[in-house]
Amino acid sequence: MSTISTIGFDADDTLWESEVFFGEVEKKFSDLINSYGVEADIGKELYETEKRNLPKLGYGVKSFTISMVESAHHLTQGNISSGDMIEIVQWGKELLHHPVKLLSGVLDVMSELQSRFTIYVITKGDPFHQQQKFNDSGLSTFVTDIEILQEKDNEAYRKILASIGVAPEQFLMVGNSIRSDILPVIEIGSHAVHIPHETTWQYETEHAGTSGDTYTILESIRGLPEFLASFDS
Amino acid sequence: MSTISTIGFDADDTLWESEVFFGEVEKKFSDLINSYGVEADIGKELYETEKRNLPKLGYGVKSFTISMVESAHHLTQGNISSGDMIEIVQWGKELLHHPVKLLSGVLDVMSELQSRFTIYVITKGDPFHQQQKFNDSGLSTFVTDIEILQEKDNEAYRKILASIGVAPEQFLMVGNSIRSDILPVIEIGSHAVHIPHETTWQYETEHAGTSGDTYTILESIRGLPEFLASFDS
Repeated sequence: MSTISTIGFDADDTLWESEVFFGEVEKKFSDLINSYGVEADIGKELYETEKRNLPKLGYGVKSFTISMVESAHHLTQGNISSGDMIEIVQWGKELLHHPVKLLSGVLDVMSELQSRFTIYVITKGDPFHQQQKFNDSGLSTFVTDIEILQEKDNEAYRKILASIGVAPEQFLMVGNSIRSDILPVIEIGSHAVHIPHETTWQYETEHAGTSGDTYTILESIRGLPEFLASFDS
Repeated sequence: MSTISTIGFDADDTLWESEVFFGEVEKKFSDLINSYGVEADIGKELYETEKRNLPKLGYGVKSFTISMVESAHHLTQGNISSGDMIEIVQWGKELLHHPVKLLSGVLDVMSELQSRFTIYVITKGDPFHQQQKFNDSGLSTFVTDIEILQEKDNEAYRKILASIGVAPEQFLMVGNSIRSDILPVIEIGSHAVHIPHETTWQYETEHAGTSGDTYTILESIRGLPEFLASFDS
């Protein structure tokens, strides 16, 4: 018998592609701003604007869109045309509509684990958009519920476990972000599996872990059943 | 004994002021667009843009901000300056920070009802912003939990009642929007009290009620305890 009863999966870049679509928009944004003869580090300015806006606007596509509009103004020193502004807004809105593309192995592993574990999707960002993607993903048949948080910190994880009546040591979180999916989870005494994704938003890679943190790294979600088998008590 | 055990309060324009702040921004927006010599119906164009964006962007300040940016472009036929665009974005962001101003009577009535009823706040919009306002409101001491929905429809109310284990006939919803707080609630067999607010967003007043719908209208939340007393069984 495994000591783990419940698994939480992060969504963006753990179950389905996300950052790669943001990256495509950032590339278009960069090219557009470059066409104004801007020589500043466009990616850095956009990222700083996003970070500055986080406490006010939260995560998600709409916040990202507003950050692009602000950065476009500042980077071009107010020279950007209204038409180009609207093109930027349009790119942001298109991010809300890209088809959900599951990562390799997700369907197989979900379907294998569902009979032995209670499965949750635990994500953050724009609830409207996350719920849409979850509905489109076809994963709901394997998943008890989706929790869409404003911030994935110790307190938020503790609250979820309390509300579903699961002890921390029975819970495993699986995700691509050390900051959001791993550190807070092991800090509350749960287990964590880190599955790095080749494109992870820079913000999620900035974190302050302590040397005592232990978690498991898997190359792919396909390794999860074997990892769980090693939890036999 | 009352047959009602649980009360849900809408938040914006039921517990605290909201639409009046949007109205102030719309006035500034209108003046700004007018300064470009625009003769179109600015309010109507902005409202149509908001409605068009609703299925994609959802409710809330960030969606409103994006709709203003789009309307500004179209209304000025692309002539709006980057600086004015940023001013519009700034107005939107300021909407996220206005202090929470409770409506008259809210504190008295909440504090009177809390010992006899289980109280929920049931709202929609940007969860990040709604949660912030709730935290700032000082009402959490009276309230069991806040539910922030993407859409306040029959299904959403049914789901909440199921999850908190309350029968529809034991539930009363109180709010200023016929569309969101009244019609779906009486359709699922619960009770509803409409407290009109002098500024209610136009969208919330567009609805298709049937002649069989019955609900109670109160001029102020102060009338709620007396109304509840009339529910003696």
